[in-house]
Amino acid sequence: MNILLTIAFDGTAYHGFQVQQNALAIAQVLQDALQKLFGVRPAIKGCSRTDAGVHAENFCVSFKQQTNLPMQKLPLAINSYLPHDIRVLHARLVPENFHARYAAISKTYEYRILNRPVDDPFQNGRYYRYAAPLQINAMQQAAAAIIGKHDFCSFMSSGSHVIDTVRTVSRLQVMRRGDMVVISITADGFLYNMVRIIAGTLLAVGAGHMQAQQLPAIIAAKNRAAAGDTLPAKGLFLCKVEYPPLFLCEL
Amino acid sequence: MNILLTIAFDGTAYHGFQVQQNALAIAQVLQDALQKLFGVRPAIKGCSRTDAGVHAENFCVSFKQQTNLPMQKLPLAINSYLPHDIRVLHARLVPENFHARYAAISKTYEYRILNRPVDDPFQNGRYYRYAAPLQINAMQQAAAAIIGKHDFCSFMSSGSHVIDTVRTVSRLQVMRRGDMVVISITADGFLYNMVRIIAGTLLAVGAGHMQAQQLPAIIAAKNRAAAGDTLPAKGLFLCKVEYPPLFLCEL
Repeated sequence: MNILLTIAFDGTAYHGFQVQQNALAIAQVLQDALQKLFGVRPAIKGCSRTDAGVHAENFCVSFKQQTNLPMQKLPLAINSYLPHDIRVLHARLVPENFHARYAAISKTYEYRILNRPVDDPFQNGRYYRYAAPLQINAMQQAAAAIIGKHDFCSFMSSGSHVIDTVRTVSRLQVMRRGDMVVISITADGFLYNMVRIIAGTLLAVGAGHMQAQQLPAIIAAKNRAAAGDTLPAKGLFLCKVEYPPLFLCEL
Repeated sequence: MNILLTIAFDGTAYHGFQVQQNALAIAQVLQDALQKLFGVRPAIKGCSRTDAGVHAENFCVSFKQQTNLPMQKLPLAINSYLPHDIRVLHARLVPENFHARYAAISKTYEYRILNRPVDDPFQNGRYYRYAAPLQINAMQQAAAAIIGKHDFCSFMSSGSHVIDTVRTVSRLQVMRRGDMVVISITADGFLYNMVRIIAGTLLAVGAGHMQAQQLPAIIAAKNRAAAGDTLPAKGLFLCKVEYPPLFLCEL
């Protein structure tokens, strides 16, 4: 049986999803819980690596395990072995050839900027704070230039070994939610730190340090130095992963 | 100079606002910060006592202190001495006779019920969870019967020495915000545990364990046993305190 879990986590306490040698990762904590429940330690496949401190509202994980537990009871059973900052939201059976990472059609991330001088005691570690007022209209105008199929080389941190740096951004919105400025981006794939660099570039436009009209030239430069700063991991949320409907038919 | 601070806090780690003998209270932490900033330890007046674990989006505190710091710089100065779960949002001068508790005309509290089977890893300690579906319409019907001037004796925990138990609820709304059912209540004053007992009664109605039509009889009973359970403190937020506009004119 191939099982797909949708999980949410506050990544503050963890060094990303992927198991690390010398640091606590979410995958390890989840495997510990599955081992306690099933008596064996299944290999798990995450929909993406995430950096230390990144959060997820709907992260997808698949693993193979025989069980008599009905899928609707699995979340509560696994949650009883998990810490409060990681929760299994849903569980479902998927075909044997499903892989949480390779089957994904698109992913949607949010980058959250608290646009006020004072921190929010209820969301500590889950936003980047920028005190001065942001020009949302200018950010939206810059965002429009990023939508589409481009070589996003300018928005990739060095140290990545990816060769094909062309990605398709199908949706990129900038909106206010109370004091929070939310950048929501959907693409078929993301380069290393791509969302955090796009967020840093849009922030620079909103703050008046760059102009929205510069975006086509920044993309065309294919040079990391042309884009804005890489914003910190703590403002980044993986919000949605899309799979082909065929995989999600009831088995 | 009499200074009014508006503060927000996650109350999870504290034993309420009021200074306690053997437990850490928010007032103590705030006084520690003020002492570090001003070199003296001012007496502070909170807009209300709050129970251990209760949160606040806009709690009001007044204290007398001479300072040359402009009011707009005071929040950042005090925040630099506060832990992440307590933040000063605003500071303003108020007349010498202003008292954060006695000057209040009304207060607005929210009680938040997460209406789903799985906990929210981003809001740990800041809601009460109820898994089965709630009938919001029935809760709204029950809420309508509570609005107005009543003897709220049925909604007061034993152990209170208050004699006059008549209060005026000017507003009581029940609404959904995503998976959260939010009960928002405004009154000229609240009896001991009044919001948590009203929330427990509305929850019982939403769950089908009580009927909305019973509310007038529950109020008329003037008997704590007639109302629903006292819900836990962790779901309770002080959201707004209203003062006479005269007090808030620029000095």
